[in-house]
Amino acid sequence: MALTHFDAAGHAHMVDVSEKPVTARIAIARGTVRMSAETLALVTEGRAEKGDVLGVARLAGIMGAKKTADLIPLCHPLPITKVAIDLTPDPDLPGIVVEATVKTGGQTGVEMEALTAVTTACLTIYDMVKAVEKTMRIEGIHLVLKDGGKSGRFEAAP
Amino acid sequence: MALTHFDAAGHAHMVDVSEKPVTARIAIARGTVRMSAETLALVTEGRAEKGDVLGVARLAGIMGAKKTADLIPLCHPLPITKVAIDLTPDPDLPGIVVEATVKTGGQTGVEMEALTAVTTACLTIYDMVKAVEKTMRIEGIHLVLKDGGKSGRFEAAP
Amino acid sequence: MALTHFDAAGHAHMVDVSEKPVTARIAIARGTVRMSAETLALVTEGRAEKGDVLGVARLAGIMGAKKTADLIPLCHPLPITKVAIDLTPDPDLPGIVVEATVKTGGQTGVEMEALTAVTTACLTIYDMVKAVEKTMRIEGIHLVLKDGGKSGRFEAAP
Amino acid sequence: MALTHFDAAGHAHMVDVSEKPVTARIAIARGTVRMSAETLALVTEGRAEKGDVLGVARLAGIMGAKKTADLIPLCHPLPITKVAIDLTPDPDLPGIVVEATVKTGGQTGVEMEALTAVTTACLTIYDMVKAVEKTMRIEGIHLVLKDGGKSGRFEAAP
Amino acid sequence: MALTHFDAAGHAHMVDVSEKPVTARIAIARGTVRMSAETLALVTEGRAEKGDVLGVARLAGIMGAKKTADLIPLCHPLPITKVAIDLTPDPDLPGIVVEATVKTGGQTGVEMEALTAVTTACLTIYDMVKAVEKTMRIEGIHLVLKDGGKSGRFEAAP
Amino acid sequence: MALTHFDAAGHAHMVDVSEKPVTARIAIARGTVRMSAETLALVTEGRAEKGDVLGVARLAGIMGAKKTADLIPLCHPLPITKVAIDLTPDPDLPGIVVEATVKTGGQTGVEMEALTAVTTACLTIYDMVKAVEKTMRIEGIHLVLKDGGKSGRFEAAP
Repeated sequence: MALTHFDAAGHAHMVDVSEKPVTARIAIARGTVRMSAETLALVTEGRAEKGDVLGVARLAGIMGAKKTADLIPLCHPLPITKVAIDLTPDPDLPGIVVEATVKTGGQTGVEMEALTAVTTACLTIYDMVKAVEKTMRIEGIHLVLKDGGKSGRFEAAP
Repeated sequence: MALTHFDAAGHAHMVDVSEKPVTARIAIARGTVRMSAETLALVTEGRAEKGDVLGVARLAGIMGAKKTADLIPLCHPLPITKVAIDLTPDPDLPGIVVEATVKTGGQTGVEMEALTAVTTACLTIYDMVKAVEKTMRIEGIHLVLKDGGKSGRFEAAP
Repeated sequence: MALTHFDAAGHAHMVDVSEKPVTARIAIARGTVRMSAETLALVTEGRAEKGDVLGVARLAGIMGAKKTADLIPLCHPLPITKVAIDLTPDPDLPGIVVEATVKTGGQTGVEMEALTAVTTACLTIYDMVKAVEKTMRIEGIHLVLKDGGKSGRFEAAP
Repeated sequence: MALTHFDAAGHAHMVDVSEKPVTARIAIARGTVRMSAETLALVTEGRAEKGDVLGVARLAGIMGAKKTADLIPLCHPLPITKVAIDLTPDPDLPGIVVEATVKTGGQTGVEMEALTAVTTACLTIYDMVKAVEKTMRIEGIHLVLKDGGKSGRFEAAP
Repeated sequence: MALTHFDAAGHAHMVDVSEKPVTARIAIARGTVRMSAETLALVTEGRAEKGDVLGVARLAGIMGAKKTADLIPLCHPLPITKVAIDLTPDPDLPGIVVEATVKTGGQTGVEMEALTAVTTACLTIYDMVKAVEKTMRIEGIHLVLKDGGKSGRFEAAP
Repeated sequence: MALTHFDAAGHAHMVDVSEKPVTARIAIARGTVRMSAETLALVTEGRAEKGDVLGVARLAGIMGAKKTADLIPLCHPLPITKVAIDLTPDPDLPGIVVEATVKTGGQTGVEMEALTAVTTACLTIYDMVKAVEKTMRIEGIHLVLKDGGKSGRFEAAP
């Protein structure tokens, strides 16, 4: 089995998608930032008064999606048509669950855009809270769903 | 306790570091990409013949470190003086362990640069291997060490 | 009445335009940089001999249009198909009138591209002349015309 | 009198600041987005419930300051050490007053960084509210204060 | 005869391609980095053991193609659908021959993308080897082939 | 002999310059765009009337210098303190000679910045004139001079 990002000689290339049709595509990715219960409380109460960590992270995630082709060497530039980021505090982790939904009409999928949006939002949460807790961890970044295009629908096992 | 990235009114700002001295700073961050044993074999044997996944990921991580202030809204731009990325296949995960070391002489630390380098390298591995396995997960992104600057040395528990 | 850049919960998102048709779109924006008559004379005579302020500003405006989606957080990336910048010295202001025309074939309008082109050109004029006059002001940045797309034609009152 | 951004032959160049000392520098710039009273009400009440226009604009302004040398052709890249954006709704305009404060320790001033932060925040307000009112105008972008460096303190007349 | 990148008044503009059809387009560009035979040996043997100069240059070339519209002021942003870079050591030069192939489905050609890919790869080779030889020269960057679009096929004389 | 951009294991890294002193550095690079005598005449007469090809190329070169660390994977970001681009039509080539001078106060040299400025200016000339002549060639890009830093002065043989 071969990796598509390399040619027959093993050289990296940006795969030729010229012949692929433009189709509606969607991808959803998810990840979490784990932190102590005290830190989580600081983040969630902050929304009201002390500073909106989640609002900043959401915006960073949206803008991060637009930088995907700039960050990931072999990604094709794609005309993104939607980005939404859900940030859900979860006291059981404790931490924040980050989920990104990205759409495009294009010749390749937007998995990397969704994953980049999630990681950028997670890194931004880390940045804003690190003065309080340096032991936070970003965990479980994965693709939840992908649809559109020849390879069909993928859905992660729950 | 307050989050330093917000002012007294709860508004996000880029913290004033004008008065902080320029000191030598280092940060190390780490994370992993988990995949099946078959996928890992494909990546590791590829180095020799079918395409150098780890070489591409290493370069993406180095370049990602340079984009940190562009990605993370409240990060200060910093004159990075070193970036190194170690990529170690680990059959016990199975997966790849990614570790980034970043140095600067500056007025704030390079934790975010090290963490951004790690996540960019992990995302790039995902991108290059996703045609083979979509269920890979990026796990355990965390700060391993930070030194230099007023707040002193931080080392993660092993 | 709701702002379209927020969802029902009040969270910022990049609006879903996936279902909107690709149509020919145009936008024109305008603004001015006001300066003293002496400064204006320096700029206009400079075109011939001492340095082409307006030529530099025009190029900065064109390149600024291409950076719109990078600067404005919730803007969609769009395949710009035309940018033209008119720079007209007006001794009655005194100052320079900047007008940008941008076209695309896309799913959303190019108002922000035209406005970003105008402000970038204005800022560049300020930058090049500020050693001579720091009291210049950028005034009256507004949308002049917009056409194409579902919401129809808009034309500013003269 | 000559414009410093051109050499003796009238060619644009990035001025040589190699011999200038690194000093602490600050610049403050200001501007406004004028809108109808109804639109302003929508923006101000939105902070609580319908979406935080001012929070998004503030972040865009901070990130815009970091892109100054990328946008303005002859600007030197500078290690920004602080950016703060104040956004004050003013029912008398009616509209929003945007003020940016930028600091650096560098060889040239940060006027352009402060002005770019203000215009980016203004453009972002326009973008988020344009579905409701297309006749908004960005007005009165100007330098309020500049200090540090050989040319000394500048303060705009009130 | 007129240059299309200027209007009738001699002002630079991004040419209006709105009315041009979207067609499949390809461009191939080539260039060389000349160096001493000793340096070339260092580069070619390095692939196996001491560091993969050509692998790094290939990736830089691919990423450079994506930055074309950011670098070349009047270039249109284009949705690149393929980039491949061939790097061939040639002991007769001695040096490395760099060839880039770029495709798009768009309204203008990808000559500049192919040429930018080649020059970025050449500059990267220079950067990686300059500690050993500063007298290397980048030579003969030219367009080899262009096809698609109204102006038809162009092929350089061999 | 080893290439400094790779570690002992042959892995690419951004070299550690933390311990190097900040010194004044300068680099000069040069290259040419060869074209037919007719094309050259079009470019040179255009300065006055039909469009300032050299003015656009000069600006592109200056801005290109600022993007060096973004383009060349292992380059350190540097605070450029001067960029000047000389463009000299030479009827004997026939063509345009492009020379860039870059300065910094930093821990590494600015050779790559000067070379990137030259190539970006050359590519921009090509772009603006390609409708008239596709057979132009960019030739002889090389480092002319480098000074400052531990490795001392380098000057190319004339």
